[in-house]
Amino acid sequence: MKEPYVKKIIARYNGEGQIQETIDDVVTEFPLTLFVNGKEVVTLVCTPNDLKELGIGFLISEGFIADFSEVVSLDLQEEGFLNIRLNKEIKNTGTFLRRNIASCCGKGRAGLYFINDARQVKSIDSAKKVNLSDCLTNMKILEERSELFHLTGGVHSAGLIDGKSILFYYEDIGRHNTIDKVIGSAVINQITTFDKSLILSGRISSEIVIKAARASIPVIISKAAPTDLAVDLGEELNISIIGFTRGQKLNIYSCKERIIL
Amino acid sequence: MKEPYVKKIIARYNGEGQIQETIDDVVTEFPLTLFVNGKEVVTLVCTPNDLKELGIGFLISEGFIADFSEVVSLDLQEEGFLNIRLNKEIKNTGTFLRRNIASCCGKGRAGLYFINDARQVKSIDSAKKVNLSDCLTNMKILEERSELFHLTGGVHSAGLIDGKSILFYYEDIGRHNTIDKVIGSAVINQITTFDKSLILSGRISSEIVIKAARASIPVIISKAAPTDLAVDLGEELNISIIGFTRGQKLNIYSCKERIIL
Repeated sequence: MKEPYVKKIIARYNGEGQIQETIDDVVTEFPLTLFVNGKEVVTLVCTPNDLKELGIGFLISEGFIADFSEVVSLDLQEEGFLNIRLNKEIKNTGTFLRRNIASCCGKGRAGLYFINDARQVKSIDSAKKVNLSDCLTNMKILEERSELFHLTGGVHSAGLIDGKSILFYYEDIGRHNTIDKVIGSAVINQITTFDKSLILSGRISSEIVIKAARASIPVIISKAAPTDLAVDLGEELNISIIGFTRGQKLNIYSCKERIIL
Repeated sequence: MKEPYVKKIIARYNGEGQIQETIDDVVTEFPLTLFVNGKEVVTLVCTPNDLKELGIGFLISEGFIADFSEVVSLDLQEEGFLNIRLNKEIKNTGTFLRRNIASCCGKGRAGLYFINDARQVKSIDSAKKVNLSDCLTNMKILEERSELFHLTGGVHSAGLIDGKSILFYYEDIGRHNTIDKVIGSAVINQITTFDKSLILSGRISSEIVIKAARASIPVIISKAAPTDLAVDLGEELNISIIGFTRGQKLNIYSCKERIIL
């Protein structure tokens, strides 16, 4: 497998009149192709680590499976092929299976409308309350922990948090991939999610909210902005959307009553 | 058409012990579906402005057309349908046409391999030299100009630059969309590109380099990081990749001889 970053000889200008040759760490792109029951499902352009978590998380967050018990076998090949065998057939081989998803994205119009299809997303039933100070503290931890970001400046990060601590932490060039890795890890390790929060460095678009809903995570905390659709879906699916979590500040966009001082 | 942003009632914590209700600007998501000669090609989740530029730029940067003379008609409907009629049939209705691309992304493995197919990307033949100080100055202009970013914090921006000035400037929730809008605008306005540079706020992934190559732009300047594949493609396609353009500093990753002090 490729490494998550490589060394390159670059020319650096540091503002002092001279261009100097130096060696820098550059983040890598790696294509992971998922096969489910022998059928090609999707190619994710990603950071080449935690690929089993990525694959399983993708199947959960895209509604293919509900839990890890449906997975019979999991085989990762060096060339970037992840073969997953399920104890069931997968239904939709229509629009969905004909997509390719790249390093930081999802599925466009389909994504917005899939909510109404067979893989329907349910509103989250969770009495969880979240301490505002835990959101601020965990964002600080997330930022400090991002090694690959500090090396390359080219990745997003995400984690699953429980009160004051981050249970799982993942990095990826793809904003969506970080979420899938977190969800995959929770599912593989059979961690309950309805009482946890998802924390991430990247923007909260509608698809991130759908992924969280499919994984039964009632709170999403981001350093960045949400979109209008993400906020509307948050209200609809009973998910608290928290954005611009920076320093001692944050904004709560939906299900505000869940956040306590 | 939807507006690029909407007002939402949010709860804000500003670090001083109280959560306060306030009104905030939130960036919108809008699905634009492209039909070419009556056939559905792709749905782009985007910021709802400059949609004709986006559509034409997409066709150029994805190799469907080589210039605007191939476009017979262009009809944008309120619901987000862009009908484009060409003076030719489009060839590949295989893998390519079966993709959906979302708010900040491309096409995964396919993208990496399409270089070898009929829509082959050619190395750029340009003697253009770029002044390092122009890169720094234009990045400052790009940052100051991003109105929607200043309002919502949720968009990328990109522009086409000629020496000391930015000719075209676009914003979008999708990193790729900003590039397509710039390219579309250049093509529609019949501006030569082989002597210009592309400037953007987002990361430089391999697909951004392929888009630039298809639009014959020899220099890409970003505020953010490049990936390894982007740097390799830069060398291969004779495109200068400049990253981390911040304040008085920048890094040159490929075709370094083009950048002069």
